[in-house]
Amino acid sequence: MTSLAAARLPESEQPLPVVRSVDDLRAQVAAWHRDGKTVALVPTMGALHDGHLALVRRARELADQVVASVFVNPTQFAPHEDFDRYPRDEAGDSRKLASAGCHLLYAPTVRAMYPEGFATAISVGGPAEGLCGTFRPQMFGGVALVVTKLFLQAQPDVAVFGEKDYQQLMVIRRFARDLDIPVRVEGLPTVREADGLAMSSRNAYLSADERARAPELNRALLDAASALAGGAEAATVLEAVRARITAAGFGSIDYVELRDADTLVPVTRAERPARLLAAAWMGKARLIDNVPVLPA
Amino acid sequence: MTSLAAARLPESEQPLPVVRSVDDLRAQVAAWHRDGKTVALVPTMGALHDGHLALVRRARELADQVVASVFVNPTQFAPHEDFDRYPRDEAGDSRKLASAGCHLLYAPTVRAMYPEGFATAISVGGPAEGLCGTFRPQMFGGVALVVTKLFLQAQPDVAVFGEKDYQQLMVIRRFARDLDIPVRVEGLPTVREADGLAMSSRNAYLSADERARAPELNRALLDAASALAGGAEAATVLEAVRARITAAGFGSIDYVELRDADTLVPVTRAERPARLLAAAWMGKARLIDNVPVLPA
Repeated sequence: MTSLAAARLPESEQPLPVVRSVDDLRAQVAAWHRDGKTVALVPTMGALHDGHLALVRRARELADQVVASVFVNPTQFAPHEDFDRYPRDEAGDSRKLASAGCHLLYAPTVRAMYPEGFATAISVGGPAEGLCGTFRPQMFGGVALVVTKLFLQAQPDVAVFGEKDYQQLMVIRRFARDLDIPVRVEGLPTVREADGLAMSSRNAYLSADERARAPELNRALLDAASALAGGAEAATVLEAVRARITAAGFGSIDYVELRDADTLVPVTRAERPARLLAAAWMGKARLIDNVPVLPA
Repeated sequence: MTSLAAARLPESEQPLPVVRSVDDLRAQVAAWHRDGKTVALVPTMGALHDGHLALVRRARELADQVVASVFVNPTQFAPHEDFDRYPRDEAGDSRKLASAGCHLLYAPTVRAMYPEGFATAISVGGPAEGLCGTFRPQMFGGVALVVTKLFLQAQPDVAVFGEKDYQQLMVIRRFARDLDIPVRVEGLPTVREADGLAMSSRNAYLSADERARAPELNRALLDAASALAGGAEAATVLEAVRARITAAGFGSIDYVELRDADTLVPVTRAERPARLLAAAWMGKARLIDNVPVLPA
C-alpha cells in the first residue's frame, strides 16, 4: 500500500470536521445551500449512544448534509442537577458521528453561546406543563433557549429529535411553531437496548444490579399501554404501573401519566392517540420512558 | 391621454400589494432573494406618520426591497392600556407606505400571529430593566415576542427601527443577538415636528392646548443634554428637567434618567456616550422622548 492509499480512508474513518463559531457554522451551511443541498441538524448534549446515531442516520435520509451539535447546555440544568458530572467525550463522540455518516460537528463553547450581557429567556406553557416540567422546572425554558439558538445559528431545513424525550419533542414543536422558526421538526421512535431499556446517556449512572432491574419500567409501560388501548381507565392502570416498578426496585417515582399524544393535555382514558409517560429514579439515575397508546 | 397611460400611474400612486399570511410573505421575500435582491423590514403598529415614512426611506437606502408590517400587537399592551383605542387606518397607512417607496405591506390578523394553543413567551433583562420596563412591565416581553416572530416570518436582511423608542431599539438589539436571529438591526434618529416634538401616533391624543405645551419636553432634554455633555452631575440636571416640564403642564412624570448609550446601565455623569430619556404624561397621552449626550 502506498501512503496515498493509506491517507484515503473510507468515509466512515475520516476525521469529522468540527466548527466552534456561529460564523464558521453558517458559512458551511450557506455553502451547502448555495450548492442546492438540504441540511439537517441533530442537536445533542454529547455522551453519544446508538440512539443518537439513529438520529444521525434518520437525518441522512431527510437531508443531503447532516450537522450534529454537541453542547451540554447549562441553562437547562438546575444548580443541584448533574451539569458538572454529565459525561463529556468529544473525541469519542466525533468518531461515532463520523461512523454514522454525519458531515460536520458543531461544538461551541459556553461563552460563545451565552456571551457577556446575555439577557434573554424563553418560556413555554402548554405541553411544557406538568410531567418533567414539574420536576425539572428549569429544563424546558433552557431547552427552548438553546434549541432556538441552534436553529437560528445553523438555519437547517430540518432537525431530528428522539421520542425518548417525548415531552421535549412536543415542547420544541410548539415554540418552533409559535416563534415561526423556519425549521421542520422530526421525531424518531426511541432506540432501546435488547431488553427494552430506553438508551440514555444517564444509563451510565446505573450499577450492574440497577441496570438489570431498569427494563421493568419499559415492560410495565408496554403492558399498561395495551390495557389503555383496550379502553381501560387510566387511574387503575397507572396505579398498577407504580406498584410494579416500585416492586422492581425503582425508588422515587416522579410521575406516571396518560396524556393526549399531540397536546399533552392529561386524559383519563385513551379515546384518541395518547402517550403514556413515566419518570422514576433507579439509584442515582433519573430514568424516563414513554410509549404510544393507540386505541383500537 | 389613453386609458393605458392612465393605468400606468407613477410608482408612488400604485396601490401597495398586501399579504396577510406567513406563507405569502415568505414566498415574496424568497422570490426577491432568489433574484439576488436584499430585503429590509420596517415593523410598525400602523397609524403612520412621517417618522415611520423616514424609516421606509432609510430601508430603501439599505436594501433593494422594503416590506412594512402593520400589526397592533396585543401582547405588548397591559389590560388597562390603549390597545382598543390605538388608532387603526390600513387604507391610509397603505397609501402613505406606497408614497414612501415601500414595496409590500404585511398585515396579519391577531389570530394568524397568535394561533390556538399559543404558549411561548420571551423575556429580556439588561436594557429592558427600568425606564419604560418599570412603567409598562408587559411591553418589552410583548415587543420581543412579536419582533422575533416578524423577523423569522419575513427573514429580511435588515430591519429598521426609530430611536424615538430608544430603549426598545436597545432591547431588540440585545435579544436579536442573544437568540442569534440572522437580521441586522438599524436605528434611525427621531423624526420631529418643526417645534421639536417627537412624532408619535399618540400625539393624536393631545388637545390643541396640550399640543402647544408638549414640545417643552424636548427643549428641556436638549438643554439638559448640553449641561451633561459639559460634565454636570446628573442628579441636579435631571431635577431641573422635572421642574421645567412640570411647569410646562406635564402631569405625572414616569422617569427622567441618564443611561449609558449602549448598555442602558444608569450613570451619574456622562463620561462616555450616554442617553437622556424621559416619559411623562400630557393629558391622556404618555409621551416619551430621548436625546444623545456626547461628552466633549
